[in-house]
Amino acid sequence: MYKLFYYPRNASWAPHMLLEEIGATYELVLVDRKSEEQKSSEYLKLNPTGRIPTLAYGDSVIFESAAICLHLCDEHPQSSVIPDIGDPSRPEFYQWLFYLTTSIQPELMLYFYPNKHTSSVDTAESISETQEKRITEMFGLVDKQLENKEFLIGNRLSVCDFFLFMLSHWASGFKTPPLSFEHLGRYLKDLAKRSSVKNVCEVEGTNLDAYTQTN
Amino acid sequence: MYKLFYYPRNASWAPHMLLEEIGATYELVLVDRKSEEQKSSEYLKLNPTGRIPTLAYGDSVIFESAAICLHLCDEHPQSSVIPDIGDPSRPEFYQWLFYLTTSIQPELMLYFYPNKHTSSVDTAESISETQEKRITEMFGLVDKQLENKEFLIGNRLSVCDFFLFMLSHWASGFKTPPLSFEHLGRYLKDLAKRSSVKNVCEVEGTNLDAYTQTN
Repeated sequence: MYKLFYYPRNASWAPHMLLEEIGATYELVLVDRKSEEQKSSEYLKLNPTGRIPTLAYGDSVIFESAAICLHLCDEHPQSSVIPDIGDPSRPEFYQWLFYLTTSIQPELMLYFYPNKHTSSVDTAESISETQEKRITEMFGLVDKQLENKEFLIGNRLSVCDFFLFMLSHWASGFKTPPLSFEHLGRYLKDLAKRSSVKNVCEVEGTNLDAYTQTN
Repeated sequence: MYKLFYYPRNASWAPHMLLEEIGATYELVLVDRKSEEQKSSEYLKLNPTGRIPTLAYGDSVIFESAAICLHLCDEHPQSSVIPDIGDPSRPEFYQWLFYLTTSIQPELMLYFYPNKHTSSVDTAESISETQEKRITEMFGLVDKQLENKEFLIGNRLSVCDFFLFMLSHWASGFKTPPLSFEHLGRYLKDLAKRSSVKNVCEVEGTNLDAYTQTN
């Protein structure tokens, strides 16, 4: 039994969708960010970074959303959400998983929380503006990869798709949001039809209306 | 035969040390950052992100330094630089690899290149100052993990150690540099004695004197 410490639409979202996709038995534990519960001494014992998510299983605990996902892949080899070792898609999977989590994800954090990264209060707006441009270019690069493709890696759903869905949703408020890109937009709308995505969004209270519009 | 597109002490450093550690046959290709060669049309065909490193092998190409390392682990299972699937250290390996590459590494990029993230020229100094504090706290967290330990994961060298060595060196100019931490400092000095680390530093022209001082 897995226990996922989560907060709606936080970085727990990708592992939450993965748990649902692979049909794992799991329990959700809400970490109330509104009361800064992720900085409580109790939570810091589980996860010294004070960030969401954390996964507990048996006597073990693991943090970092992508690490949680790779661990779940290892434990559920039949679920096929990561290409097998030796499959030419495997290095491509690693490449995009790290691009999404080491480039787009931290760049989005800086967009949302510029004040954590400067002591100059006047500059937050300038940082977010610059970040929006940078990240929009990054989504443009991903958009090109999705031309004529249903999934980011090969022709099968992988963990990368849950990360891309999550990060794209975070950028919904951009002037050029991910849904407005030709290939990325079509891809996101298709992903939003999956029962794993829909179930998780229902539980977390996430409105998917924007993904069902036909425009 | 692998071909590693690198620049001394860039993010190519970790995969370079790994190639040396596992005894792979490889060739180095210098990407001259001084002339912005990583933004040349030729390089962008290999790696559309315009970043260093890239690894070419056969007809394939892969970018993202951690992705390159995980791919090399898959191709050299006998090298034991990643815990086996099923080993309790495996999820811990993922956790720290992602912590290093999704937290410390991008935070260091912001420390070094604040002007890429704001249009306000006055604020760069404020960003770097804040970043130094944030990243020093992160190294403090890693320092605690290294108490009584020779390596970051279990009791064996892993890919995480090459990343931690690289990122620590990047922060050498901090007021409280990684070498000054009790456990992290001792660990870095031990790593600097490894032949893989020494060979790569010699080739890349990296001075290791600070690591051989006794105090």
